[in-house]
Amino acid sequence: MSKHVLAQNQYGKAENRIVKITRKGSDGSWHEIRDLNVSVALRGEFRDVHLTGDNGNCLPTDTTKNTVYAFAKEHDVTSPEAFGILLAKHFVNSQAVIHEAQIRVEEFAWERIPVPTRKEQHSFVRSGQEVRTAQITYGGSTGLQVISGLKDLTVMNSTNSEFHGYIKDKYTTLKEAYDRILATKVTARWAHSSSAADDAEHDWDRSYKKVRTHLLEAFAETYSYSLQQTLHAMADRVLDNVASVNEVRLNLPNKHHFLVDLEPFGLKNDNEVYFAADRPYGLIEGTIHRDGVRPVISTSDWIVA
Amino acid sequence: MSKHVLAQNQYGKAENRIVKITRKGSDGSWHEIRDLNVSVALRGEFRDVHLTGDNGNCLPTDTTKNTVYAFAKEHDVTSPEAFGILLAKHFVNSQAVIHEAQIRVEEFAWERIPVPTRKEQHSFVRSGQEVRTAQITYGGSTGLQVISGLKDLTVMNSTNSEFHGYIKDKYTTLKEAYDRILATKVTARWAHSSSAADDAEHDWDRSYKKVRTHLLEAFAETYSYSLQQTLHAMADRVLDNVASVNEVRLNLPNKHHFLVDLEPFGLKNDNEVYFAADRPYGLIEGTIHRDGVRPVISTSDWIVA
Amino acid sequence: MSKHVLAQNQYGKAENRIVKITRKGSDGSWHEIRDLNVSVALRGEFRDVHLTGDNGNCLPTDTTKNTVYAFAKEHDVTSPEAFGILLAKHFVNSQAVIHEAQIRVEEFAWERIPVPTRKEQHSFVRSGQEVRTAQITYGGSTGLQVISGLKDLTVMNSTNSEFHGYIKDKYTTLKEAYDRILATKVTARWAHSSSAADDAEHDWDRSYKKVRTHLLEAFAETYSYSLQQTLHAMADRVLDNVASVNEVRLNLPNKHHFLVDLEPFGLKNDNEVYFAADRPYGLIEGTIHRDGVRPVISTSDWIVA
Amino acid sequence: MSKHVLAQNQYGKAENRIVKITRKGSDGSWHEIRDLNVSVALRGEFRDVHLTGDNGNCLPTDTTKNTVYAFAKEHDVTSPEAFGILLAKHFVNSQAVIHEAQIRVEEFAWERIPVPTRKEQHSFVRSGQEVRTAQITYGGSTGLQVISGLKDLTVMNSTNSEFHGYIKDKYTTLKEAYDRILATKVTARWAHSSSAADDAEHDWDRSYKKVRTHLLEAFAETYSYSLQQTLHAMADRVLDNVASVNEVRLNLPNKHHFLVDLEPFGLKNDNEVYFAADRPYGLIEGTIHRDGVRPVISTSDWIVA
Repeated sequence: MSKHVLAQNQYGKAENRIVKITRKGSDGSWHEIRDLNVSVALRGEFRDVHLTGDNGNCLPTDTTKNTVYAFAKEHDVTSPEAFGILLAKHFVNSQAVIHEAQIRVEEFAWERIPVPTRKEQHSFVRSGQEVRTAQITYGGSTGLQVISGLKDLTVMNSTNSEFHGYIKDKYTTLKEAYDRILATKVTARWAHSSSAADDAEHDWDRSYKKVRTHLLEAFAETYSYSLQQTLHAMADRVLDNVASVNEVRLNLPNKHHFLVDLEPFGLKNDNEVYFAADRPYGLIEGTIHRDGVRPVISTSDWIVA
Repeated sequence: MSKHVLAQNQYGKAENRIVKITRKGSDGSWHEIRDLNVSVALRGEFRDVHLTGDNGNCLPTDTTKNTVYAFAKEHDVTSPEAFGILLAKHFVNSQAVIHEAQIRVEEFAWERIPVPTRKEQHSFVRSGQEVRTAQITYGGSTGLQVISGLKDLTVMNSTNSEFHGYIKDKYTTLKEAYDRILATKVTARWAHSSSAADDAEHDWDRSYKKVRTHLLEAFAETYSYSLQQTLHAMADRVLDNVASVNEVRLNLPNKHHFLVDLEPFGLKNDNEVYFAADRPYGLIEGTIHRDGVRPVISTSDWIVA
Repeated sequence: MSKHVLAQNQYGKAENRIVKITRKGSDGSWHEIRDLNVSVALRGEFRDVHLTGDNGNCLPTDTTKNTVYAFAKEHDVTSPEAFGILLAKHFVNSQAVIHEAQIRVEEFAWERIPVPTRKEQHSFVRSGQEVRTAQITYGGSTGLQVISGLKDLTVMNSTNSEFHGYIKDKYTTLKEAYDRILATKVTARWAHSSSAADDAEHDWDRSYKKVRTHLLEAFAETYSYSLQQTLHAMADRVLDNVASVNEVRLNLPNKHHFLVDLEPFGLKNDNEVYFAADRPYGLIEGTIHRDGVRPVISTSDWIVA
Repeated sequence: MSKHVLAQNQYGKAENRIVKITRKGSDGSWHEIRDLNVSVALRGEFRDVHLTGDNGNCLPTDTTKNTVYAFAKEHDVTSPEAFGILLAKHFVNSQAVIHEAQIRVEEFAWERIPVPTRKEQHSFVRSGQEVRTAQITYGGSTGLQVISGLKDLTVMNSTNSEFHGYIKDKYTTLKEAYDRILATKVTARWAHSSSAADDAEHDWDRSYKKVRTHLLEAFAETYSYSLQQTLHAMADRVLDNVASVNEVRLNLPNKHHFLVDLEPFGLKNDNEVYFAADRPYGLIEGTIHRDGVRPVISTSDWIVA
């Protein structure tokens, strides 16, 4: 028998790719699509599974996969959040040994291909602008916790960005910039209040669109003296405008665009031609939350640009 | 000295990432952006470079990179094709030892972030729907050859697709399908006529939009009995509608969506819940060209889905 | 002024790719190589940077990049851990506004290409078996914390693995297995005791090799009734054999190998022919630590297989 | 009916991931593993499939997948080449409408995890050094054609590389180098003579090891004045030493390692500290073949580093 301590552990089936087609209209010719990547993690009394080879407390990951697909048939899939809440509650409520469940969902967006000549609508093109995310945790001491988000939303301001007045030490060679490109690939997560999470009628799609719009607008409208300042303005804007959101965390890689030196060729580069660099990149991360609220979004991950 | 034969060879700088900002309007406050990934390959009299360590005929790849950036300043970047033509001609016309140049360009699309409150427009969000491509070859016996294209355009029809009546051999287990999802990630290339390639006024952006629209519409409107049939209909549609295009090649991975068997759970899956599989995938490839035209698009590559 | 709270935040330059060549021997003809990917994150008094556009407390990410490269010249790079400790201490000790620094390092291994005919040794081939990782945190209340690790180490037992006796609910269809393939791609992290971290003579390379060997041997020698059990055995083995390690966390995707049903072709598949699936996959994660020690390795990340 | 011409077309199932375990020894306790990714492409009389929706000539891609798995049971999998030859011949010989078949195989290598305490050997760790490839084409006018290869073999010489004496034009800024790092990620393909391809006893594994060793040794032993010269030396070495190989094509991205300028920090960088760049990269490609032999390896692909 091990003399060591089994601490945090979890297991489940990750990346269950599921597409649900829903037929609407009197003849079902109006199709709607939800395209999800659903991951399940279960926490509970799994000590024997680890120590003795006794799987009596183990709900197989294969069963968690089946559950995801069966639930997609048994229930409407109205949003990643609502679907994740159903799943998280099911695992905790149906098996006493499961104390907490965490569901992570990625959603891929599709737009319609317009076909004016027919009323049937069942043709789609995938929209690549961003991936929507949701993380639902249920059980344990926290009750129900819903964190929504997005990733891979790449944005750029081609002016209205400066950077100067910083510390200079013996390793500093950076020239101060009074007009630069500011570009980043946004990873955002935002935590909802318990009242929103517990409200069965909460409109998650509407809330998602609102947050996304405010993030984009704040990015575009902020005259920036640092990416940190832009980050703060984006989070602030969401908290100011979406009452059900309590906390925002942003991970913003600074996708450097370096002005190419064209002087060797007798040319002046008047902020026109840039080299878009891959690595290294600045990485700016931060959490902003309402006063009086305890932050819950994980800070430990490392977002790769 | 080697007793073997040096056959096809080429070299250059690949994946020069370049962003060009152009300021329009009386005060330059309307910004336009072109975001390109430009690769250069040169062919010519490079025998000594390979055999004796004499680099007298070698234009350094670093110089080809510099040329890309300098040209972006010296010329308008009106389209991937026009920019590629400029570069290809430059290398062949400026160095006698370079007999042929091939430029490949990927273009990443950006949309504006609407900021209604200001007339300055310099905020963008990257549109992820597809990557535009262009391959320009100049020199040698072929003159100027322009192949445009796109990749990563993912499309789906959630009905109007069947597959049956195929060969059955001893390894066949597939059940015939009378209503299935048809999904693919389109890689398309189309070759332009010489008159289009040689026309300095050819509107490459307009031509691109037209081809893209016809590909999408043909995909959506074709009632499909096989992905091959859909492929042919897509290429046909382009040739029927875009007079300056002579040849179309499509690489269409069949992104399988398998109907999940829900019967073990007492549920009927009425074409609603699908598993989106990664690998393996069908891969359907084909070239369609106008009668009397010699096809020029490479058939040997292997497109990974 | 924002009425919201700025909570955890950090910034720095990520993914500084650095190769250091060290010449050994009386004539310097014996080359040694360290190939690192170094990321820097700084925490401290950065409130004004976020709120007012005053960068007076901001050491530019570009400077942190320069520091990485300069330190590689000024110091021996004897291991990812030792190099990370130097950097972390430098940032905290040289700037009062920086309270804590975290350095993450990936190391890519190279083997020599044997050239028996010469004593000069400067030819290498990259060994792809795994990526070595290290995370060093210095400052704040924790002092110096060193977490070593590896990722992308893919292993397989082609027998000696069973899985049965698990919970069956209404969504369970999995058949019990008495002989299966067990394959996983190991991500491991292990935390060192403070005395090891603070020991300037600690041999990090030797410690790495020991842990790696014990992980591999435990995987190979454990007759497995679940991947959880194998995970626990691997961590136990390390703690039993490497005194300076206090805690081990493993993230083990269950890379499913499904026995292909060959009966439709009149063939019996006697555990010979498998389909290696991509998604979904089981994901088993857990922390094991010495009794009396507080676990410090982040549990919140989501390892993608 | 289309008025256009259907030219080159092919279809099949791509990326069939297959693991075959073979038990050796009197009690079957010595396991051997082959881990393959097999892609099938068929060419033939598929006009109606494209034009009329008549699938009478279409062997489903699903059947080609089944065939791969069934053949792995019915036959020994002694090498990617031998397995590919079996499959290619099967498709052409069993269906009159299939005129040519092309099989592409990737093989992932595994090493044993040494377990000295037991004679049973069934534990493996994946070796990441390179991926072995093979492309087999059968039918049509060419008979049987076998092209072997490898990819992702990353190598470096930390000295013995120069680059100077090149063309200088108005866009040249590169400084001549008399001691630089030369690093590349080798993609190699080599075509076998018909007699080797048609020899049922040809030892493909032995041949693979020989070619690989000669490529590595030639890279290490060549004092280089350009990557082109190294490319030529590598191909020459293979042709000089492996009689059954007629042609070699190499795609060598020049993975630039730039010497970091440490002078701003008062440090001299004596070829010690390098920045490993991602993009852009030089890309050097070439075919070398025996005199009197017609080259057959495709030159049109674009290898991304």
